[in-house]
Amino acid sequence: MADQYYPDAELDLDLRWWAAANYLTVAQIYLRDNALLREPLRAEHIKPRLLGHWGTSPGLSAIYAVLNRHIRRTDADWLYVTGPGHGGPALVAATYLEGTYSQIYPQVSADAAGIGRLCRQFSSPGGVPSHVSVQTPGSIHEGGELGYALAHAAGAAFDRPDLLVACVIGDGEAETGPLSASWKLPAFLNARRDGAVLPILHLNGAKIAGPTVLGRSTDTDVAAYLSGQGWAPVFVEGDDPRLVFRALWAAVDSAHESITAIQRAARAGTASADTPRWPAIVLRTPKGWTGPHTVDGVLVEGTHRAHQVPLSAVRTNPAHLAQLERWMRSYRPDQLFDENGTLAAELAALAPAGDKRMGSTPYANGGRLRRALPVPPLERYALDVPAPGTTFHETTRVLGEMLRDIYAEGTRSDGGGDFRLFCPDETASNRLGAVFETTDRCWQLPVTDHDDGLGPDGRVMEVLSEHLCQGWLEGYLLAGGHGVFASYEAFAMVSVSMLIQHAKWLQHARTLPWREPVSSLNVLLTSTCWRNDHNGFSHQGPGMIDAAIPLSPEVVRIWLPPDSNTLLSIADHCLRSTDHVNLIVVDKQPHLQYLTLEEADRHCAAGASVWRWAGTEDDGAGRPDEPDVVLAAAGDVPTEEILAAAELLRVWVPYLRVRVVNIVDLMALMPQDVHPHGFTVAGFAELFTEDTDVVFAFHGYSRAVHQLLHGRPNADRFHVRGFNEQGTTTTPFDMVVLNRMSRYDLVLEALRRARRVPQRGDELARYCRGQLERHRDHVVAHLEDMPEVREWTWGSTAPAEPTTR
Amino acid sequence: MADQYYPDAELDLDLRWWAAANYLTVAQIYLRDNALLREPLRAEHIKPRLLGHWGTSPGLSAIYAVLNRHIRRTDADWLYVTGPGHGGPALVAATYLEGTYSQIYPQVSADAAGIGRLCRQFSSPGGVPSHVSVQTPGSIHEGGELGYALAHAAGAAFDRPDLLVACVIGDGEAETGPLSASWKLPAFLNARRDGAVLPILHLNGAKIAGPTVLGRSTDTDVAAYLSGQGWAPVFVEGDDPRLVFRALWAAVDSAHESITAIQRAARAGTASADTPRWPAIVLRTPKGWTGPHTVDGVLVEGTHRAHQVPLSAVRTNPAHLAQLERWMRSYRPDQLFDENGTLAAELAALAPAGDKRMGSTPYANGGRLRRALPVPPLERYALDVPAPGTTFHETTRVLGEMLRDIYAEGTRSDGGGDFRLFCPDETASNRLGAVFETTDRCWQLPVTDHDDGLGPDGRVMEVLSEHLCQGWLEGYLLAGGHGVFASYEAFAMVSVSMLIQHAKWLQHARTLPWREPVSSLNVLLTSTCWRNDHNGFSHQGPGMIDAAIPLSPEVVRIWLPPDSNTLLSIADHCLRSTDHVNLIVVDKQPHLQYLTLEEADRHCAAGASVWRWAGTEDDGAGRPDEPDVVLAAAGDVPTEEILAAAELLRVWVPYLRVRVVNIVDLMALMPQDVHPHGFTVAGFAELFTEDTDVVFAFHGYSRAVHQLLHGRPNADRFHVRGFNEQGTTTTPFDMVVLNRMSRYDLVLEALRRARRVPQRGDELARYCRGQLERHRDHVVAHLEDMPEVREWTWGSTAPAEPTTR
Repeated sequence: MADQYYPDAELDLDLRWWAAANYLTVAQIYLRDNALLREPLRAEHIKPRLLGHWGTSPGLSAIYAVLNRHIRRTDADWLYVTGPGHGGPALVAATYLEGTYSQIYPQVSADAAGIGRLCRQFSSPGGVPSHVSVQTPGSIHEGGELGYALAHAAGAAFDRPDLLVACVIGDGEAETGPLSASWKLPAFLNARRDGAVLPILHLNGAKIAGPTVLGRSTDTDVAAYLSGQGWAPVFVEGDDPRLVFRALWAAVDSAHESITAIQRAARAGTASADTPRWPAIVLRTPKGWTGPHTVDGVLVEGTHRAHQVPLSAVRTNPAHLAQLERWMRSYRPDQLFDENGTLAAELAALAPAGDKRMGSTPYANGGRLRRALPVPPLERYALDVPAPGTTFHETTRVLGEMLRDIYAEGTRSDGGGDFRLFCPDETASNRLGAVFETTDRCWQLPVTDHDDGLGPDGRVMEVLSEHLCQGWLEGYLLAGGHGVFASYEAFAMVSVSMLIQHAKWLQHARTLPWREPVSSLNVLLTSTCWRNDHNGFSHQGPGMIDAAIPLSPEVVRIWLPPDSNTLLSIADHCLRSTDHVNLIVVDKQPHLQYLTLEEADRHCAAGASVWRWAGTEDDGAGRPDEPDVVLAAAGDVPTEEILAAAELLRVWVPYLRVRVVNIVDLMALMPQDVHPHGFTVAGFAELFTEDTDVVFAFHGYSRAVHQLLHGRPNADRFHVRGFNEQGTTTTPFDMVVLNRMSRYDLVLEALRRARRVPQRGDELARYCRGQLERHRDHVVAHLEDMPEVREWTWGSTAPAEPTTR
Repeated sequence: MADQYYPDAELDLDLRWWAAANYLTVAQIYLRDNALLREPLRAEHIKPRLLGHWGTSPGLSAIYAVLNRHIRRTDADWLYVTGPGHGGPALVAATYLEGTYSQIYPQVSADAAGIGRLCRQFSSPGGVPSHVSVQTPGSIHEGGELGYALAHAAGAAFDRPDLLVACVIGDGEAETGPLSASWKLPAFLNARRDGAVLPILHLNGAKIAGPTVLGRSTDTDVAAYLSGQGWAPVFVEGDDPRLVFRALWAAVDSAHESITAIQRAARAGTASADTPRWPAIVLRTPKGWTGPHTVDGVLVEGTHRAHQVPLSAVRTNPAHLAQLERWMRSYRPDQLFDENGTLAAELAALAPAGDKRMGSTPYANGGRLRRALPVPPLERYALDVPAPGTTFHETTRVLGEMLRDIYAEGTRSDGGGDFRLFCPDETASNRLGAVFETTDRCWQLPVTDHDDGLGPDGRVMEVLSEHLCQGWLEGYLLAGGHGVFASYEAFAMVSVSMLIQHAKWLQHARTLPWREPVSSLNVLLTSTCWRNDHNGFSHQGPGMIDAAIPLSPEVVRIWLPPDSNTLLSIADHCLRSTDHVNLIVVDKQPHLQYLTLEEADRHCAAGASVWRWAGTEDDGAGRPDEPDVVLAAAGDVPTEEILAAAELLRVWVPYLRVRVVNIVDLMALMPQDVHPHGFTVAGFAELFTEDTDVVFAFHGYSRAVHQLLHGRPNADRFHVRGFNEQGTTTTPFDMVVLNRMSRYDLVLEALRRARRVPQRGDELARYCRGQLERHRDHVVAHLEDMPEVREWTWGSTAPAEPTTR
């Protein structure tokens, strides 16, 4: 019966293919020479440093072999996500055996010379990393930091109805938080328009140094754990390759049947209202399967000792060397590769055709599938700004309207599309709620009459997990989609390590010509530190900026639009861009608006400009290019405060030449040789002059600006006020006072730093100090800000009229 | 029957207590005046800004009421961890009603004036945050960033055998990664020496804007999910308070019985080998229970609309105001508080006694339980350093030995203690394996013959989740313990947001006299970027330093010990310290050793010092205090490279006056008015002079140093080389070359920057450039570093002898 299902002859071939994969895995880890063992193994053939992970590799290759068979028989599109990415050599071996590797990297040819290079390059300088990585064909997932395999797999499957994603999850990774959350996928995967994800929980029982929780849990417990989260698990267990291959085949085949049935019903409109139970496979095989069973009398196979390099002393210990040679020859390399070192034809024939090969699938090189996003004309959303600084608007709202239309225009007939917004439960709170005019929150569990904007076909991804939002989006982008992750600014730090890893991925991907550009990772940081006055200190943290600054300057961009029209312009740019990480920092509360869309476009294209209307440098008799002091701002609240400070100066000391500069592209501050967006020396001087003191109001932690400015002429003349880790539940204005970035603090600083001591400067300083003293009394008495602060607009005289004191 | 179990009279009282808690919750959210509704409610009684979260609050208070009953009847020690910490007003109300609040904050007295203040202070400037926070009595858990409740609860229970931790988990939080991983606790909780954690999964069905996965999952699925992870769940569901209170009581009481039985068996040595199934409660009650059922005809109770302030227009809409008054009067405040506004005596009597009150438990103010850690004399572990820079050692090994003895000396007869090491599966890999000489990895699942250092009584906490390691440690510290979290440097970023939140907690805690100091959060960052040459780019990231720099200078310390004895000295300091976050950055690979323990102590106490033996400023005729160039290093690999550079300069251009400075306490670089560890102006000048150029080799991202140095005289003279986001799988020396921090790069920079152009400087520069050219050829050919680099020690002539060229 099993025989018929998986005939011996076919099984024999697949097992030989598997032997070839295992052989090349071991060879990559150990050999710098004699890669095909054409001569007896000697110490000098061994690499000086043995790096790599054997333990998980044979399991990964076995799954690959069985999936290859499935592709051959069904022509299905499988994407292989390798959670245990330490098993890099296994995936390199598999993609080499299927021919993809040599196609992408011709120097690693399909012969003995190529195999020699394959081995030598592995974990070597100028070669390839030991983990599944950007360089590995067929990968959308870096095998370093653990936890994101299933989220990436899900992201790749969204809106790809024909795709099957096999997601191998190591039992070590299964202990992580992000992976643990990822099992909730059935609540979010739509059978009609999305592809399917087949989790293969590969329990080999151990991590680096000990057992794993799921590895040591009973089948009953593991089954309950998965079924409780909406999966229908099937167990495949054993150490006899023939039995395991057959059982795994049966599991894959039946999983595929289940998936097809679920999707067919959903797509035909005949599905029941119940959430589908998606299949999952639990595969228990020994760690280091087919490797040394014992070494020096100690059990290795099946234990944590098989994790990395099971025979470590091969260069110095002849017994180890001999055992390695026996182990390698047990795969019979002479029967796997012909005289030229080319894979035996009958094994090469096992590879699926062309792009069906998992190393060649376009789903793993999403730039090949990516279509330019039809971003609607911005004029449609442009906010009418009659005069700068006189009207308030919840800045993010215009973005919600723009995303609404991107959803509307991009939705396919099956309900899928190219764009998704990911947000931990805060889309409406972040004032992006306009999207719900055209789509819902995605939800596959029951919906009640009292739910708003919720439904199975919804395409806004809300889940209370920054890890899932970010991981899903990363997978979605790498498979060719577009998207935005909108987060409370402070809580974007929850998944900052993922952002860092993604930036590293893009940094490397940009150096590989075969990797087509993918859409940028756009992160909207809103509900910012300055305006989480209602949520308190835990919600106040702009540290994402600090985490992003040191990353690759080729990849990272930080945008601080001060108002709605600049946000539109920046969003438009980011949504069209590729291979970047864009942080867009802007608050959601009502803020003053300054620029028309046309002005905003110019301002954003420049990165920073002088706002002449706000300064006084052209007034009076002074040289216009030599202001007495520059007031600069980056960010919405800082802009508000710097403008209020500028107005105080204008009204009180109008003859002081004040220049106002606004910075939208933070990286423009960096020297040009450090960041490609850095202003030229001349451009920088045009904004800030060569030596005028600059009072700088910054959205983030103040001292971060100094690391940007290092290398600029007279960098010490920049006096930065920013978030200074002072926060609590309070009023908006109290936040800027607590952090000494209020208009009054900025005026005082400007008066201290100005080139000239202005007449009436002392009076103004007294006024500002008085206002700061009044502030606390007022705010505690009234639980609100002083009216003249709350209602201040550009040109209003209330706070600035010297005669009113 | 139920009656007997929970007599009506008692239930009536508890329900009245609950009404009082709910009343005060609503009053805090809404009222600035007329807090006891002694007159008809008018718009001016309402706060100008309505901030706070009603939805989760009544459930939290109900649990509190039932636990109070349990304490009264059993005298148990319960700690209450509020996962849905947005329900701050409920916990403030509960601790006010039990008398703790007025005791800690006498101005919030047990009368009408106190209640007035209680309401007014809530979410107000100068008052208390809207979430459960540092200020909330009985809390060890900030209710802002979600995900850590169960990890904190577990940490508090470790080694506290008499403690019961009730951990309320909101169904929103249950979607997060860290919380999802936390359910694996039964694999790590020891019934003999640890306390118990009773998770109360509070499913009210909705988060801010929509439903939750577990809230909409069936009981069957939720039960499977929990039981699959080792829990024995009991469901309590309903909206009739009498029924729910009785059912919740029965669940708590039976959970306590199960816990007692499990612990008794474990402590008597009569437990079976099976991992105990700990009880868990699933509580389904309506969101916004007892609040407005509908508002303006729209259903609110039981939906996401009850999340925050269900009646939002009370100041302007008279119908809303009237509905609010009806709602508040439905709790019958006149029957809850007497004429003075003091809680009715029969309700006050429901409070447990003294420290049994959950707001007063010392377990929530761990400094009260903290005992100084018996740190053994460092001499025991001191590494013999015959001469600086001539011997290699795996630096972290000495720390492992020290921790081993801390374990050994601190273990109680029941197997518990005061100290634990937390590490994601890397204790041995990080060279801290000596701890396994005295204890095991903690593991409650089956143990096999082939496991190493693993057992139920083990007290090293290894789980492949940085979130769990960090969360457990935080809870452990806040309940009075000591500990270290050892992480791969790059992956410490996985839980960086938790570290940030903990630093914020400590920053606020330090301002509250009633919060006794707790042990510092000590994070060992090892397997650093420079020496993850074997794991590649994903493992190379020193960003934790950048994330920590902007946090409170009162709290954060960053230590970069260059060798073993400095590590010992720093670890000793950190383990004795309180209320800090200490980052200790040091690699685990073999590194040169420099200082004897005595020298190390002096160096660490200073924070940074001149290493005269390595410089040449005292040679020749120059003024010793006026070096031509300063070479500075912070970190082990940078120190190695800077010393090699110093030796090259010494041998080639001995008459150049070179000073070598080593920095161990990174914050010493900051101006003294920015960080308390900052060197004085004079102290800084003694190290770096006023104006000599400094070539600075830094462990982390290079530009971070510039934000530290801002404000120092002539800060631009610092030329920093550091990690520059260039990484891959390569050799150790190639890493410093890729990032341009190699000895040759440093020499070239020093020659460029030195005050004098040294004779033979050109020759040396040519040599260095030649070495850099040779490097890549060699490393690619040999897959290893050039021998003269690999084997370099201080005083070895090979790389530095000009005649050998």
